Amino acid sequence: VASPPHIAVVGASTADADVDATAEEVGRLLAEAGAVVVCGGLGGVMEAAARGAQDAGGTTVGLLPDDDRARANPYLTVAVATGLGEVRNTLIVRDADAVIAIAGEYGTLSEIAFALRIGKPVVGLGSWDIEGVETASDAADAVERALR
Amino acid sequence: VASPPHIAVVGASTADADVDATAEEVGRLLAEAGAVVVCGGLGGVMEAAARGAQDAGGTTVGLLPDDDRARANPYLTVAVATGLGEVRNTLIVRDADAVIAIAGEYGTLSEIAFALRIGKPVVGLGSWDIEGVETASDAADAVERALR
Amino acid sequence: VASPPHIAVVGASTADADVDATAEEVGRLLAEAGAVVVCGGLGGVMEAAARGAQDAGGTTVGLLPDDDRARANPYLTVAVATGLGEVRNTLIVRDADAVIAIAGEYGTLSEIAFALRIGKPVVGLGSWDIEGVETASDAADAVERALR
Amino acid sequence: VASPPHIAVVGASTADADVDATAEEVGRLLAEAGAVVVCGGLGGVMEAAARGAQDAGGTTVGLLPDDDRARANPYLTVAVATGLGEVRNTLIVRDADAVIAIAGEYGTLSEIAFALRIGKPVVGLGSWDIEGVETASDAADAVERALR
Repeated sequence: VASPPHIAVVGASTADADVDATAEEVGRLLAEAGAVVVCGGLGGVMEAAARGAQDAGGTTVGLLPDDDRARANPYLTVAVATGLGEVRNTLIVRDADAVIAIAGEYGTLSEIAFALRIGKPVVGLGSWDIEGVETASDAADAVERALR
Repeated sequence: VASPPHIAVVGASTADADVDATAEEVGRLLAEAGAVVVCGGLGGVMEAAARGAQDAGGTTVGLLPDDDRARANPYLTVAVATGLGEVRNTLIVRDADAVIAIAGEYGTLSEIAFALRIGKPVVGLGSWDIEGVETASDAADAVERALR
Repeated sequence: VASPPHIAVVGASTADADVDATAEEVGRLLAEAGAVVVCGGLGGVMEAAARGAQDAGGTTVGLLPDDDRARANPYLTVAVATGLGEVRNTLIVRDADAVIAIAGEYGTLSEIAFALRIGKPVVGLGSWDIEGVETASDAADAVERALR
Repeated sequence: VASPPHIAVVGASTADADVDATAEEVGRLLAEAGAVVVCGGLGGVMEAAARGAQDAGGTTVGLLPDDDRARANPYLTVAVATGLGEVRNTLIVRDADAVIAIAGEYGTLSEIAFALRIGKPVVGLGSWDIEGVETASDAADAVERALR
């Protein structure tokens, strides 16, 4: 049995309604395709993607910056308290086979940059415009590109 | 809904039949009690504990030292490739609410020591005899102590 | 006695002659101002900045990605083998009071983003054009801004 | 020019007068032998070893658990704020060519275990009695064994 792909979904911890809907659809489509959703385990894009994936019966992992799991969103199959602060961004990327970045701020940029540095594909949806990031037109396009 | 406890099961990556049976029973009992089993994701005690837990319908997490998931044992709900080498031992302990150490060598000792250093309870089953480790008489006793 | 400021100088591991000269001058000016130069310990911008600082009698630290110090450039007061691979980028930034980015590629971008994420000032010299990075006109301007 | 050996000196952050004197002598002898002293950067054994080394003109490095350098002892050529908490113990050991453990509690035990796990020599002076640790009779013996 082949291990399922792990796709990181990264973005800001507070998201407006549109971004939230996009992240949820990305999560749902990833789950339907059999991928594991890896995220930072907190709110915003992380929570929406996990919710979408879990609603579709998928597996979700949250790698938290904290020493404990108190702030984990409720849509995670497994929350891991890394205690590493923002260094945990690098773990999310390291574990992923590809990264989907949805909107996001500096933390998201650090994940994009780290992914490109270590050669992981990055797909962007209204996120940072960095050379090397594949721009997707919508959630379905982003998931298709990430799973390629 | 309260989040389930996370119990780390640590020990050597090669285990003899007795140790293997003990680790499997520890995993099974943890799953039956609703705990998530956290381990290093490789063979030996890690694999036996994950197998026992997964057979009982539990959730298992493996935090691998490697950059990829190729060496993950097949009994993990989620395998995470940390890329941190043996530093990942500290993540296993950090995430756990308590640690059950079964036999094991220097890696296991590093996990015991790190757990005691940061104030996590450690239960030992034929493992290192270090002050502060609670010695359990068997798998059931170990699980009961770890979940206390 | 107040502890001296630590300024990270980040950039690509291969640098052309102009970038190299700029990095060396940045290192020299930081040393003359009493700052410790923190870098990734390898070649290119890291080596040029360390050389400039050491020639001026300054203290230089290189946080290497490797398990050993074999690839350390020869201009480091202290080389530290972190064994963390590219995760060490986050340590360089964490330790720094401010970051000077000179040219650079994705690794440099990860350092810029991580610094902005955790609230450290970033000064750019021909580097990534990211909102929040202060653009300096030359080495002297960069050092002055970083030490502010 | 060969790079100097790095010797980690580990032990408790509070030390009694005897332990303190031993750590200081170990630091002094390491410096006289041209070794760089690597430590955790705080008080007790770390501070005494750094003081001994610095008094003898040696180079000392402190890898702090903290996000900043405020708690660094004053005898460090370079203090590095890792922000990794107790995970920084693994960095001290990773960078070292050998480890000298003087007295110490669980943190020290984690360093001993991690060192043995990754194959670094460990010399003990009144420290944990773990198989694989070379027991030294005094500071001079410890330094001689570590530099072998």
